[in-house]
Amino acid sequence: MNFNVIRILVGKILLLVGTLMLIPLITAFIYLESLKNIISYLIPMSSLILVGGFLGYFKPGKNTRMGAKEGYVIVSLSWLLMALFGCIPFLISGYVNDFFTAFFEMASGFTTTGASALTAEELANMLNNGGHSLLMWRSFSHWIGGMGILVFILAIIMESNDGSALHILRAESPGPQVGKIVSKMKISSRILYLIYIVLTLIEICLLNICHIFDENMTFFDSLIISFGTAGTGGFATTTLSVGLYQPCCQYIVATFMILFGVNFTIYYWLIIKNFKDILHNEELRVYLIVIIISVAIITTQIASMYPTLEEGFRHAYFQVASIISTTGYSTTDYWSGAQGRWPVLSLCILAMLMFVGSCAGSTAGGMKQSRVLIIAKYSKSKVKTMISPRRVEVIRLDGKPLDTKVIDSTVAFAILYIVILGIATLLISIWNPNMPKSDQDPLTMFTASLSCISNIGPGLGAVGPAGGFSNFSWFSKLILTFEMIAGRLELYPILILFSKSTWKKST
Amino acid sequence: MNFNVIRILVGKILLLVGTLMLIPLITAFIYLESLKNIISYLIPMSSLILVGGFLGYFKPGKNTRMGAKEGYVIVSLSWLLMALFGCIPFLISGYVNDFFTAFFEMASGFTTTGASALTAEELANMLNNGGHSLLMWRSFSHWIGGMGILVFILAIIMESNDGSALHILRAESPGPQVGKIVSKMKISSRILYLIYIVLTLIEICLLNICHIFDENMTFFDSLIISFGTAGTGGFATTTLSVGLYQPCCQYIVATFMILFGVNFTIYYWLIIKNFKDILHNEELRVYLIVIIISVAIITTQIASMYPTLEEGFRHAYFQVASIISTTGYSTTDYWSGAQGRWPVLSLCILAMLMFVGSCAGSTAGGMKQSRVLIIAKYSKSKVKTMISPRRVEVIRLDGKPLDTKVIDSTVAFAILYIVILGIATLLISIWNPNMPKSDQDPLTMFTASLSCISNIGPGLGAVGPAGGFSNFSWFSKLILTFEMIAGRLELYPILILFSKSTWKKST
Repeated sequence: MNFNVIRILVGKILLLVGTLMLIPLITAFIYLESLKNIISYLIPMSSLILVGGFLGYFKPGKNTRMGAKEGYVIVSLSWLLMALFGCIPFLISGYVNDFFTAFFEMASGFTTTGASALTAEELANMLNNGGHSLLMWRSFSHWIGGMGILVFILAIIMESNDGSALHILRAESPGPQVGKIVSKMKISSRILYLIYIVLTLIEICLLNICHIFDENMTFFDSLIISFGTAGTGGFATTTLSVGLYQPCCQYIVATFMILFGVNFTIYYWLIIKNFKDILHNEELRVYLIVIIISVAIITTQIASMYPTLEEGFRHAYFQVASIISTTGYSTTDYWSGAQGRWPVLSLCILAMLMFVGSCAGSTAGGMKQSRVLIIAKYSKSKVKTMISPRRVEVIRLDGKPLDTKVIDSTVAFAILYIVILGIATLLISIWNPNMPKSDQDPLTMFTASLSCISNIGPGLGAVGPAGGFSNFSWFSKLILTFEMIAGRLELYPILILFSKSTWKKST
Repeated sequence: MNFNVIRILVGKILLLVGTLMLIPLITAFIYLESLKNIISYLIPMSSLILVGGFLGYFKPGKNTRMGAKEGYVIVSLSWLLMALFGCIPFLISGYVNDFFTAFFEMASGFTTTGASALTAEELANMLNNGGHSLLMWRSFSHWIGGMGILVFILAIIMESNDGSALHILRAESPGPQVGKIVSKMKISSRILYLIYIVLTLIEICLLNICHIFDENMTFFDSLIISFGTAGTGGFATTTLSVGLYQPCCQYIVATFMILFGVNFTIYYWLIIKNFKDILHNEELRVYLIVIIISVAIITTQIASMYPTLEEGFRHAYFQVASIISTTGYSTTDYWSGAQGRWPVLSLCILAMLMFVGSCAGSTAGGMKQSRVLIIAKYSKSKVKTMISPRRVEVIRLDGKPLDTKVIDSTVAFAILYIVILGIATLLISIWNPNMPKSDQDPLTMFTASLSCISNIGPGLGAVGPAGGFSNFSWFSKLILTFEMIAGRLELYPILILFSKSTWKKST
């Protein structure tokens, strides 16, 4: 283990997070917030800059080699530290009193989960009693987390371009294969970031235009919602989520959620007019087909529950977009709303979409469409091989044969996903003294666990759109936090961080 | 495809099923049942013997080769036909009016699932209005299905011993590896059957001794319950299941459920005093450890819900034994009983056990302990390989390195299991007009699907111990029947039967 490389990179990340806290600090000045709020940013900022600067001060020495193991450790360590330092403002400002709640909240922010452990009162208190900057910090963390802060560092700050940095990208980027847009990683990350920023800006503009029809959609709200959409996070300003705004805003947000769930390489291809590759991209096709079919079925089922067909369609479209993109916004309460519970098939479809998630190479979580596609093809080929044992089945994606290594690791990923999901479900069921007995049912525990590992936000049952994670015990919150980070980093980095053999002297 | 071999073997099976109907016929005579009942057996018996005899009449010709494909087709076809012919007595006698209910019930019987689609009234009607023989037939089908009727045929009737029969055994026997007790299959099946019969007889004797303390445990009931235990099925005479009987009976049944969930090879080793292999058997160790831990946790959680600690322990012990052995009997209603719903951790543990099931080479269903063990080891080795990519991880079972082919097919099995489970959950959620809306929740649909593919019987929610499958629509019942047969035959045979390429002319 090359501790020098780890030290330097983690130091740089801490410096960056410290700098990014300027955004909520500026917000606090604009809203003329209390001195306590301003101090609550200055303390973590100064400590981040001090610790980060100290860690990065000493040069790495001769050995700058960085292997897969170092990559995994850097990534998982920095995400943990980001959530840890990021939650300090909540605690100092006094808007949140419990450490585990604040830690859960910021992990949920950076991992773009959007599951909130705040009670409705705590959230309303922030909005109405001078806590705008904290809401901004919470949502801005989605935007940072969306594309991976480390790729950001590599793209903007780091000078080295020797390929060893690829280990970071591989550890942090979602999907079974690391997309190679252009050969030089630094350039390709910059292109991705440009697309990310431009799409976010377009959404902010569109939402501000909607302000004409909807006075709730202020400039502040447009930022919060756009950050939440871009990072496929899901934090909003009230427990009403996007249901607070007019239909035109809901359509815009839903469409952008779907757009941010698309592999960003597609947009690059769009720019360079490479339409052939776009048409041949199986993942995109499956993604769009799944959305269309799900929306169609759910609209048919729920149409009669709402006053107009348009409203039924809008809620189906928004909820499907929100769950498949793992954002977690909602416009209606499909579990315990006034219109009644959605039919069971619609709920089961939403639960399935929670597993699947969006495209690889997007800001979304979940297993990813391409993995599910590979697994579907793998299952099919296995059945075929049982019929004719001597036939060799080649699994193809986008028309090209897939490497058996990719298939093997995809299958292993799916198995690990389900194993962690199962164990976490058991662990969070053990002890929740503050949760009403009637809320503690297997469906709530299972979907809470699933929602966190897939970085979605809401689930079914007591963690449905109107519910939340505030009643879980500190122990359960810690397990769910672990799941969120594991899910965001695609399992391996966080497992490796906590694995004994990583920390053995000899390698 | 060698249709001649398929024809002859399927013919023999139909003959055998026809002959086995003598048991309920004799029961009908003993209980002096109506002429209608007797006719309801004579019609399917005569048609089975006629069709079976006709199919087997013509000699197979020169080509007696039987490959894997033929094996799969024979197995899945015969299980379908068994359920199809087996349900005729219910329909003719008039105790059941709906074909899909009767078909579901007999598929549930032969696959040793024990899920009942009968309403409480229909069941009581059979017991109180001269339908003992039908209850006997229902439970006897568990006993036939438990060890696989085809192995039975191979062991008793078939003369050939050329090894090609191994394909049948492989297609029908549960577990990742076909156990080779002794080299000659015919002899080994006979040993297995002897163990099976002796264990069943011991249970019948013990339950009859209990008749001293419990007048409910008649000779008839002891047969019904013993057949249900031996096949790990779960049909009882009333909806109270084993809760009808005294604690001593409950302890006996629970212990025998655990015994029938053990790999039968262990008993063979016990007979030939091969204690070394028993001690080294990892699956047995894990099976017992899982039982002990589950019972301990659940007892702690539910003790305060019952009058005495003994009663809490007894219910925990019985329910764990019943679910892990995939039998499905119950002594208390953990979902909607008078004592209140069990705590969520206990319910989640039961749900996990539904996945796992018992040991390979037993009469039980589920994924099997050894598969789960292999998957756990596989997951661990995958994480290790991510840390040190160059290290070669060898997965061992019982101290011996496992063939990568076995690991590969185990992983594929787990994936397929979950894929089928998920698709079936969606399908049974589509349309159930007779089911109360409040019963149609995702947990009910998911555990109904899980319970059927794992051949258990009850689930959680509306299909809990006090509930049943009677409210599902004919379409849902058909899907669940498919799941039961797929689960019992370990997925591949039934998938291959319905696969297009199986029926192509060229092979």
